[in-house]
Amino acid sequence: MPTRIAYLGPAGTYGEQASRALAELEGLTEVSFLPCVGLRAVVECLAQAGADAAVVPVENSVEGGVTATLDALWAHSDLGIRRALVLPIRHALLGSGSLQDVTEVLSHPQALAQCSGWLAAQLPQALQLPTSSTAEAARMVAGSRFRAAIASRKAGLEHGLEELAYPVNDVAGNRTRFLLLHRGERRLEGDVASLAFSMHRNAPGALLEALACLAEQGLNMSRIESRPSKRELGEYVFFVDVELPAQQPEALSTLVAALTPLCEHLAHFGAYPSSELVSG
Amino acid sequence: MPTRIAYLGPAGTYGEQASRALAELEGLTEVSFLPCVGLRAVVECLAQAGADAAVVPVENSVEGGVTATLDALWAHSDLGIRRALVLPIRHALLGSGSLQDVTEVLSHPQALAQCSGWLAAQLPQALQLPTSSTAEAARMVAGSRFRAAIASRKAGLEHGLEELAYPVNDVAGNRTRFLLLHRGERRLEGDVASLAFSMHRNAPGALLEALACLAEQGLNMSRIESRPSKRELGEYVFFVDVELPAQQPEALSTLVAALTPLCEHLAHFGAYPSSELVSG
Repeated sequence: MPTRIAYLGPAGTYGEQASRALAELEGLTEVSFLPCVGLRAVVECLAQAGADAAVVPVENSVEGGVTATLDALWAHSDLGIRRALVLPIRHALLGSGSLQDVTEVLSHPQALAQCSGWLAAQLPQALQLPTSSTAEAARMVAGSRFRAAIASRKAGLEHGLEELAYPVNDVAGNRTRFLLLHRGERRLEGDVASLAFSMHRNAPGALLEALACLAEQGLNMSRIESRPSKRELGEYVFFVDVELPAQQPEALSTLVAALTPLCEHLAHFGAYPSSELVSG
Repeated sequence: MPTRIAYLGPAGTYGEQASRALAELEGLTEVSFLPCVGLRAVVECLAQAGADAAVVPVENSVEGGVTATLDALWAHSDLGIRRALVLPIRHALLGSGSLQDVTEVLSHPQALAQCSGWLAAQLPQALQLPTSSTAEAARMVAGSRFRAAIASRKAGLEHGLEELAYPVNDVAGNRTRFLLLHRGERRLEGDVASLAFSMHRNAPGALLEALACLAEQGLNMSRIESRPSKRELGEYVFFVDVELPAQQPEALSTLVAALTPLCEHLAHFGAYPSSELVSG
C-alpha cells in the first residue's frame, strides 16, 4: 500500500515540493500525495488516520514561525516529527499579460509579505488579494491580463502562466523549514529534537528556569518561539528546538525528565534528522 | 492644532475604537484621526511626521503577537510607546440576508482565525475571504444577501448591516493590546517598559544571559515574543515587556545599562501606563 502524505494543496505549492523531497529522503518509493485545504486540515488528516504522514511549514526565515502549524502541533502533542527539510523559497510574478498592465496581485498572505518591498517599488498601485495558497493564486489568475500571482515557477508552468518577474522576494536567502509528521513512536536519537511546553506559573518569568535547565544539560537551542496559551494575555506556550550531540544517545530523555517537573504540560515531538535543499 | 493620530482604517475598525479611547485617556481634547491602509503605513505615517501619534495592535490573546507591528517597531526603534490599552474583542457576523443564505464570509485574516471554530460549526460550506481590515469587510458586504462580514457591532451600524450572530469569536475572553506610539523623548517611569534586542551570537542560547540579567534586577517579564532577524533561520529579535516597580524610578535605566553589552542591538521604547477597557 502506498504511503499517504497530506500537504497544503493544491498541486504546485511549495508544500508539494517539500513533500516530494521529504518522501525521497525517507526512501519511500510508493507514495500518494493528498492535497488538503488549510494547514489545520493537513494536521487533522494525519491525526484522524486519513494519511500516514503530513508535511507542514514550521518556520520561514523572513516571516517567522508558522502559527497555524505551531498551534496544530500543540493541539496534537501525540504526533511526532520524522524529518525536517529547509527549502529555498524563490517567488515569481506570474501572469498572462505584461507587467505594466497588472492591477491585482494574488498570493498567500505570507508570500505577499515576503515580497512587500518589491511590490511597493514595482507595482505600488496594484491591489493585493490574499489567497489560501500560492498555487491557488496561480490557478485563479490564469486567463486574466490584469491579474498576476506570486508563486513558484513550477506553479506557473502547471497553469500555463508567463514569468513577468523573477525572483520577486525581498530577501535573497528566503527559506522555509518543513516538517514530515507521523503518528506513533517518536525516536530519541537524531540531529535535533523539538519540544513544546507551558509553565506552571507566570510563563515568561518561569521561562528562565527552563532555559537554565537546557544550559545545565550542555544543550544548544537552535530555535525558540512563543505562542499565546489562548487562555490569558501573558500566558505562553514555548516551542524549542535543541541540537542533540551525537555522542549522547540519552540526551533527549535526560532533558525531558529534567524539564517535566518545571512544566504544566510538556510535549516532545521526538528527535529527527534535519537537512537543507540547496537548489530550489 | 489638533493632535493627528494615525490608525488602521477605514472608520469602524477596532483600531479606531482603541484610538478614541487612548486619546481620551491621554486627555487630548482636539484630535484628528487619520485612517491608513495597512499597519506598515500607520507606523510610516508617524515616523515621517505625517501624524503626531499612531495606534497599533501589538498582541491578541488568541492569535498572539501582531508580527507586522513588531517588525515595524524594530525598523523604527527611535519611536516610543506613550500608553497601552487592552480592548475586549467581540466579533459579530454582519449581513443583509439571513444566516442560512450566507455563502461567503469576509474579514481580516486574524478575525477569521479568531472565529474559525464557530465558522466550522455554523457555516462549514461558506468560503472565507480575507480583507485588509474588519471594517473594510463590513463595507464590502453591504447590499449583498449572500456575503457576510465578521466585524464589530459598531462597523455593522455604520454600514447599515444586520447582526446575523453575536458573539462569534471562539474564545469569550478575546482581547487585543493596542499601543499609542509617538516620536521624541521616551519616559523612564511608568507601569511597564518595552524593549527589543538581538544578540551578538547564536541568539536562542544567548537569550539565557539576557533573561538572567532581568532576573538579577528583580524584574518580572510580562511578555516575551521572538521574531526572525530576517537574515538567517535561527537568528532572532526578542521583544520583552517588563513590569517596573513603583519604588524604583531608576529600574529601567539600570536594566538598559546592564543589557546593552550583551546585545548586538538594543531598542527601548520607554516606560508607560497600561490599562484595560472593560466594556467593549
